Amino acid sequence: MADIEFQIFSWEALHEFAARVLQSFGVPVAEANTAAEILSLSDLRGIDSHGIARLPAYVEMLSIGRINPRPKLSIVRESLSTATVDGDNGLGLVIGPQAYAITMDKADHAGTGWVAVRNSNHYGIAGYYVLKALERDQIGWAMTSTTKVVAPLWGAERMLGTNPIAIAFPGFEEPPIVIDMASNPAAFGKIEMAIRKGTEIPEGWAIDKEGYPTTDPHQMVQGGAMLPLGSVRERGGHKGYCLSAMVDLLCGPLSGANWGPFTPPFTMQHAEPPRQVGKGLGHFFGAMQIDAFRDVDAFKRSIDDWVRTFRRTKPAPGTDGPIIPGDPERQAERERRVGGIPLIRPVIDELIAVSNKTGIPLDEPKDR
Amino acid sequence: MADIEFQIFSWEALHEFAARVLQSFGVPVAEANTAAEILSLSDLRGIDSHGIARLPAYVEMLSIGRINPRPKLSIVRESLSTATVDGDNGLGLVIGPQAYAITMDKADHAGTGWVAVRNSNHYGIAGYYVLKALERDQIGWAMTSTTKVVAPLWGAERMLGTNPIAIAFPGFEEPPIVIDMASNPAAFGKIEMAIRKGTEIPEGWAIDKEGYPTTDPHQMVQGGAMLPLGSVRERGGHKGYCLSAMVDLLCGPLSGANWGPFTPPFTMQHAEPPRQVGKGLGHFFGAMQIDAFRDVDAFKRSIDDWVRTFRRTKPAPGTDGPIIPGDPERQAERERRVGGIPLIRPVIDELIAVSNKTGIPLDEPKDR
Repeated sequence: MADIEFQIFSWEALHEFAARVLQSFGVPVAEANTAAEILSLSDLRGIDSHGIARLPAYVEMLSIGRINPRPKLSIVRESLSTATVDGDNGLGLVIGPQAYAITMDKADHAGTGWVAVRNSNHYGIAGYYVLKALERDQIGWAMTSTTKVVAPLWGAERMLGTNPIAIAFPGFEEPPIVIDMASNPAAFGKIEMAIRKGTEIPEGWAIDKEGYPTTDPHQMVQGGAMLPLGSVRERGGHKGYCLSAMVDLLCGPLSGANWGPFTPPFTMQHAEPPRQVGKGLGHFFGAMQIDAFRDVDAFKRSIDDWVRTFRRTKPAPGTDGPIIPGDPERQAERERRVGGIPLIRPVIDELIAVSNKTGIPLDEPKDR
Repeated sequence: MADIEFQIFSWEALHEFAARVLQSFGVPVAEANTAAEILSLSDLRGIDSHGIARLPAYVEMLSIGRINPRPKLSIVRESLSTATVDGDNGLGLVIGPQAYAITMDKADHAGTGWVAVRNSNHYGIAGYYVLKALERDQIGWAMTSTTKVVAPLWGAERMLGTNPIAIAFPGFEEPPIVIDMASNPAAFGKIEMAIRKGTEIPEGWAIDKEGYPTTDPHQMVQGGAMLPLGSVRERGGHKGYCLSAMVDLLCGPLSGANWGPFTPPFTMQHAEPPRQVGKGLGHFFGAMQIDAFRDVDAFKRSIDDWVRTFRRTKPAPGTDGPIIPGDPERQAERERRVGGIPLIRPVIDELIAVSNKTGIPLDEPKDR
């Protein structure tokens, strides 16, 4: 990002700003704080696309009444290890943590908990949820469907979201293994970044509006689509499509939420889907008590051994060898808790607009 | 396969042969029949690499006492929705179905069932298990670790297996969506096929023993490795590595089985791992009662809608459009139940050797 202008903010200032802005739209204090916690965790962990940069879009949806600031979550069906939750069209940042608390409680009682959520909205980073499970010696799972942008293999139009999957495993002395990944090669934000920089995108990321492969980010944005993980048939693009479909099916049809091309858009900039096939946006959560399977310490020591073994892998030429899932986010968090969060000019401008609209001050950036 | 000599056998003849051969090594009748059912289902569904072609390897392991023909499965830990099972070093084709029955029973009682298996061996196609769950209106999950052959991203050696994931969702009028995929771009069998045919392999499948990308299948086999889904960093190879790691962690450390590079080899042709970090090979099974989440018919009608919607996707140029996961296997099964199973000469020769060794006749091939 060296060639793009940015300024540094403290994460506490951004957290405070987000919480107060959400409260100004009627979100209760405790829920606004949790929502702000998810946004600032995303910024701390280096996932800039899902942090404070998204606040203006949430504000837009709240201000036109598209999202309910005071949802009453309801359990519409449940069993010993499961629940289906209706999020009453609340912020995903509010409904997600409430639904995940149910998930972890189920796991405490039944060994595992699995909760399908409908009638929610975008819930921030999937990693937030699975990190919560680690605090209770559980293996956490989180998936969500997202607005359509990915074509199924052999398709020439957007039918699926980037549909992330997260899962985390705690270590004993080593840090946890935290997988948190979209199910396609690259985040949509990287397309936008290429447009801003005037560069091409790698082969395998996208097709144009006719379905032909393209390395021009404009062609993707103007009616094209992103490709699933694997990109093309001979490199396993059918498997990436399957992975994305799996997330879509667990979040949509299982909960009764919209799915595939009918998933609600994240912001008003996207067209409304042509029909409704369920209620709002869907998530799928899981939590597994480790001691329902194995002695907790024995498990964690196996994770330590796994981490150390994989760090010792013979490196590929020109690399330092494989990293452990979660390493880059941990590194970012260490740096940013102290050094602050870099925000690019377009994001700062949007936050200033939110500040002007709400009268809530955006704190001065840190000195570098 | 037009350029490779093959003959057609009826699936019933192969099923009968496999069952009798396994019995001759002490496997009880009912268990031998189930094992043969998995092998022949694989052949019927067109997954030739996992069908009768594997019988000689199972025979080899049984004949030298490496696999226990009469295992007593034990539950070493359990909760309402979970169990950890020790497979007593039995055939995976015997332990897998027994462990999966426990999984589905747990789901009947607790809404979901999750079973980690250790001390097992290779269990055939993951798809077999998830198809069983469909018969009980459950969503089935199956994963297994396999012998190391895949490098983690930025690694230059084999550390992970091809680690398949299967999951299936039943339709109402439409066929089920059945995902059953290895977590890397291509099966190892396709490398062997390229060697047999003298062709190159696609870019993105493999590295040589120094860790450099290669399209020469010999370079991969001679100390090289396969790449994870996504192949390289810029096309999401870190995500394929995460996916493979997820399967490995759920099958290995969670059950107490060996994991990663310590996963036991499938046949005697592979070197023994340098140390043991658990017991035998591990699997991870799941089953979710649909009615623990949603009305079963409403769910199945959503699946029908999903299937029809995705079949109507605008096709990419030069294709007939996206297919539904499970379509190719269904098509193969329709053809092969009637037309028989084509076996290539090297497989037939190995089966004849088994027949000679055991005295059990391999039925004459069908007339074509």
